[in-house]
Amino acid sequence: MADTSEYLREHRERHEEELKRFVAIPSVSARSEYQADVRRAADWLVERLLEAGMATAEVHPTEGHPVVVSEWRGAPGAPTLLVYGHYDVQPPEPLDEWTSPPFEPEVRDGKLYGRGSVDDKGQLYMYLKAVEAHIAVNGRLPVNLVMIIEGEEEIGSPNLESFLVENRERFACDAVLISDTGMFAPGLPSITNGLRGLAYMELRVQGPAGDLHSGSYGGAVVNPAIALAGIIAKLHDEHGRVTIPGFYDGVLPLSEEDRKRIAALPFTDEEFREEVGSPALGGEEGFGTLERLWVRPTLDVNGLLSGYTGEGAKTVLPARAMAKISMRLVPDQNYRDIEEKFTSYVRSLAPAGVSVEIVALHGGEPWHADPAHSIFQDVAAALKEAFGKEPVHIREGGSIPIVGAFEQTLNAPVVLLGFALPGSNAHAPNEWYSLENYTLGTKTIALLLDKVGARG
Amino acid sequence: MADTSEYLREHRERHEEELKRFVAIPSVSARSEYQADVRRAADWLVERLLEAGMATAEVHPTEGHPVVVSEWRGAPGAPTLLVYGHYDVQPPEPLDEWTSPPFEPEVRDGKLYGRGSVDDKGQLYMYLKAVEAHIAVNGRLPVNLVMIIEGEEEIGSPNLESFLVENRERFACDAVLISDTGMFAPGLPSITNGLRGLAYMELRVQGPAGDLHSGSYGGAVVNPAIALAGIIAKLHDEHGRVTIPGFYDGVLPLSEEDRKRIAALPFTDEEFREEVGSPALGGEEGFGTLERLWVRPTLDVNGLLSGYTGEGAKTVLPARAMAKISMRLVPDQNYRDIEEKFTSYVRSLAPAGVSVEIVALHGGEPWHADPAHSIFQDVAAALKEAFGKEPVHIREGGSIPIVGAFEQTLNAPVVLLGFALPGSNAHAPNEWYSLENYTLGTKTIALLLDKVGARG
Repeated sequence: MADTSEYLREHRERHEEELKRFVAIPSVSARSEYQADVRRAADWLVERLLEAGMATAEVHPTEGHPVVVSEWRGAPGAPTLLVYGHYDVQPPEPLDEWTSPPFEPEVRDGKLYGRGSVDDKGQLYMYLKAVEAHIAVNGRLPVNLVMIIEGEEEIGSPNLESFLVENRERFACDAVLISDTGMFAPGLPSITNGLRGLAYMELRVQGPAGDLHSGSYGGAVVNPAIALAGIIAKLHDEHGRVTIPGFYDGVLPLSEEDRKRIAALPFTDEEFREEVGSPALGGEEGFGTLERLWVRPTLDVNGLLSGYTGEGAKTVLPARAMAKISMRLVPDQNYRDIEEKFTSYVRSLAPAGVSVEIVALHGGEPWHADPAHSIFQDVAAALKEAFGKEPVHIREGGSIPIVGAFEQTLNAPVVLLGFALPGSNAHAPNEWYSLENYTLGTKTIALLLDKVGARG
Repeated sequence: MADTSEYLREHRERHEEELKRFVAIPSVSARSEYQADVRRAADWLVERLLEAGMATAEVHPTEGHPVVVSEWRGAPGAPTLLVYGHYDVQPPEPLDEWTSPPFEPEVRDGKLYGRGSVDDKGQLYMYLKAVEAHIAVNGRLPVNLVMIIEGEEEIGSPNLESFLVENRERFACDAVLISDTGMFAPGLPSITNGLRGLAYMELRVQGPAGDLHSGSYGGAVVNPAIALAGIIAKLHDEHGRVTIPGFYDGVLPLSEEDRKRIAALPFTDEEFREEVGSPALGGEEGFGTLERLWVRPTLDVNGLLSGYTGEGAKTVLPARAMAKISMRLVPDQNYRDIEEKFTSYVRSLAPAGVSVEIVALHGGEPWHADPAHSIFQDVAAALKEAFGKEPVHIREGGSIPIVGAFEQTLNAPVVLLGFALPGSNAHAPNEWYSLENYTLGTKTIALLLDKVGARG
C-alpha cells in the first residue's frame, strides 16, 4: 500500500477549507430554532462521506436529531473499526464574548476559531480526510470501517444507546475509535484511558410548612438551610476524605506504576492553581493534584438554594433548602451502590425538626481502558509516527457516558484518541482547534488504518 | 369629665363604616402605580382628623410619601401624648388567595377583611374615634395630643427618623403610643415590652475565578459551597448555642419573674409546632419556646445560593457561594459589636482555598420597655377596664426599628399597645381585624386619655 502522507500534505489547504464550511453550519442541537441547520449538517456530512469514498452514507432518523451512518466493508478478513463522532455543537452564547462570530470560522495564529471547531467537527472530520487519502492513493481502505456520527451528543445522546442496541449485530467491530478528548500538552500525543463515573443527587430539606418571619419564629424553629449546611459539612472528614460509609470500598488502589506515570507528566500545582484562580488548592490528603482529578473519587456541591437570594436583607426563615451534590467515581465503584450509600448516610445525618428528600438525578459508571488490547499498541505507534513523540496515557476527571455504552453493547474496546489542546474553550466562547493537530491527527488516523489492517 | 363609653357604643356602627372607607383606599406604598391612592389616603385622614376635633391636621411632604401630622394642644399643664401610626399598607398579592377583594372590605364572623384592616388602619383609626368621643362628650381632650401618621412604614420608614430629628422640639412629649402589634390570645389584652434587634449579614465565599467543570476539576479545587456549609455548620454548637466568641456577653439574664410570667401565658409547644408545620421544634437548650423567641438571641440562615439551582443535573464546580445570615439580638447586645464579632469569627473559619467577603446589610438594636414609667400603669389600667381582664406583658421576636428612633429622638417612653389577634394575616392574603377589638381598643384609648390626663 502506498503512503497517504504525501496526499494529505498536498491537499492540506483544501481540507482546512472544508472544515471551515462544516463549522459554518450552526448545528446547535439544544435549540429548536437551529433544527434545520442540524439536519443540514447531517446532509452535508453524507455528501462528504460519499465524496471521500465511503461505500454508503445515510441519514438515519431518531426520535430527536438524526444519526449519520456510513460504511465501507471492502476488506473481508481484515479487522473492522467503528468510529464515533458528533456533528452537533454547543450553543454559542454569550455571543459578545466571541472575537470572531461563532459560525464564521476564522484562522488566527494557526488556530481555527469557531463553535464546534474542536468539539467535535474538527476531530471528526479528520476521519473523513484519512479515508479520502486512502481511497485516493490506494483505491481502498486497509480495514472495514463503520462511522456513527450523531447529532445529539451535546444534549446527552438520548437516542444513541437504543440505536446501538437495535443494531448491535450490524455494528459488530474489533475496536471503537473516538476523537473527542484532548492532549495533555501541546506536542504531547495522548491516549485517555480512564474516565470517572458520576452519581448526581439532589437533597431537599424541609423545615416549616411555609416560609416564616425570622424575627417572629427564629430560635425555636429548626432552620432547614442550617440543617442542610450541617449535613454537607459532615460529608468530608478533616483529611478531605468522603465520610459516607463504604464509599471507598470499590476503589482500585493506585499502582506504583500508575503513580510514576502520572508524576512524569509535565504538570505543576502552581500552574494549575493559576489556571483555576483559587487562592490555594485542596483535596484528599496523600494524593497529588492529577491523582485527585483522575484516580480518586470525590464529592462536590454543584448547587445550593434556600430562602431569599436577591439584593439586600429579607428576614425570612426559609421553609426549604436544596443542594445538588455529585460524586465522581473511579473504577470499580458502582454508581447505584454509591447512590444508596449516599442516601442512607444523609438520612442518618438529618436532624430532628426537618425532613429530607433525596433524588438521584444522573448516574454513570467509571471507565478505564484495557491497554493490553492490540488496538492500543497500534494507536500508540501511529501517534508516535505522526507526532515524533511517544504518547502518554492520561485520564479525564469527567465522564463520557457513551464510552461505556459502546464497550458494553458492542463488546469491543474503546480508544479515546483526542487532539484538543488545553484551553481550547470547548463549551465556551472562542472555541478553537489547532490546525497543526488537525493535520497531525488526520495523519495519525491514516497511519492507524494501515497498522490495524496489517494485523488482519 | 363625662364618660365616653356610651358615645362610643352609640356610634359604633358609623365608626365601623368609616374604617371600611379607609381600608377601601389602596394606599400601597411599595408600588408607584398606587401613588395617587397613597396621597388620597393622607388627604382623607386629614379631613377625618379635623372632623374628629383635632385642632390642626396637615399633610407634610417628605422625599417619599407624605406624613400626616395632627395636633390638639388645648390642655396646658396636662401631659402630652404622641401617637404614631401608618396609613400605608402592604401590597395585596397574591390576589387569587383572597376570599373577598383586598380593597373591598367585608365583614365575616365579626372580622373585617381587607388589606390594612389590622396593619395599621384599623388600629390607627381607633385613636381618631377616641378623640371624637372626648371632643363630642366633653368639648376637649384630657391631654395634649400629637399624631404622626406616616405613609412609608411598609417600605422601611426611610424618611421618618430625619423628620423626627428635625422636629424633635415640636414633638417633645411624655410618652409615645403605638398600636401596631398584637394580643397574645383572644380576650387577653397585651402590652409588648420587648423587641429583638437585628444584625443581618451577607457572606460571600469565592473559590476558583470562574465556574469550573466538576468532572475535570472536582477533587483538587476547594469547593466554595462546601466551604460555606462548613462555616455555617460551625456557627452553632451541639447545644444549639451560637459559637461566635463573645456573642452572649451582653445578654441580660432572664429573671425568675420573667420566666414565670412567660410560663404563665396560655401557650403549648405542640400548638406552636402545628402552626409552623415543622416535624419537631428545636433551639437553644435550657430554654422554652417563648424564651427562645423573645429573650434569647439567635442566628438564622435567611438565604443560600451557589452554582446551578435549576432542574436536573449540571456538573458545575461553582466559583462562588453566598449566604444571608441574620442574628436576632436581645438587650443589651449591640448590633455593631455583634457584626464585628461575627465578621472576625467567620474569617477565622474560612478554609484555605477560598476567600470570604462579609457585608453588614442591616442592623438594629434590641429594645425593652421600662415598665416602671407611669404610662405603663395607665395603659394596663385602661386595658383592664375595657377588656375586663388583667393585661399580660409579652415580647416580640421581631424588630420594629422606629421604636428605638422615637425613644432616642424624643427621649420619651414608647408603649406598644396592640390589638391584632394571632393569625390576622398582616402581610398575607385575607388580612382581618376583629371588630370586637376595634371597639374595645377604641374604648381603651379613650379611657387611657382620661387616666393620663388625671395625672396632669
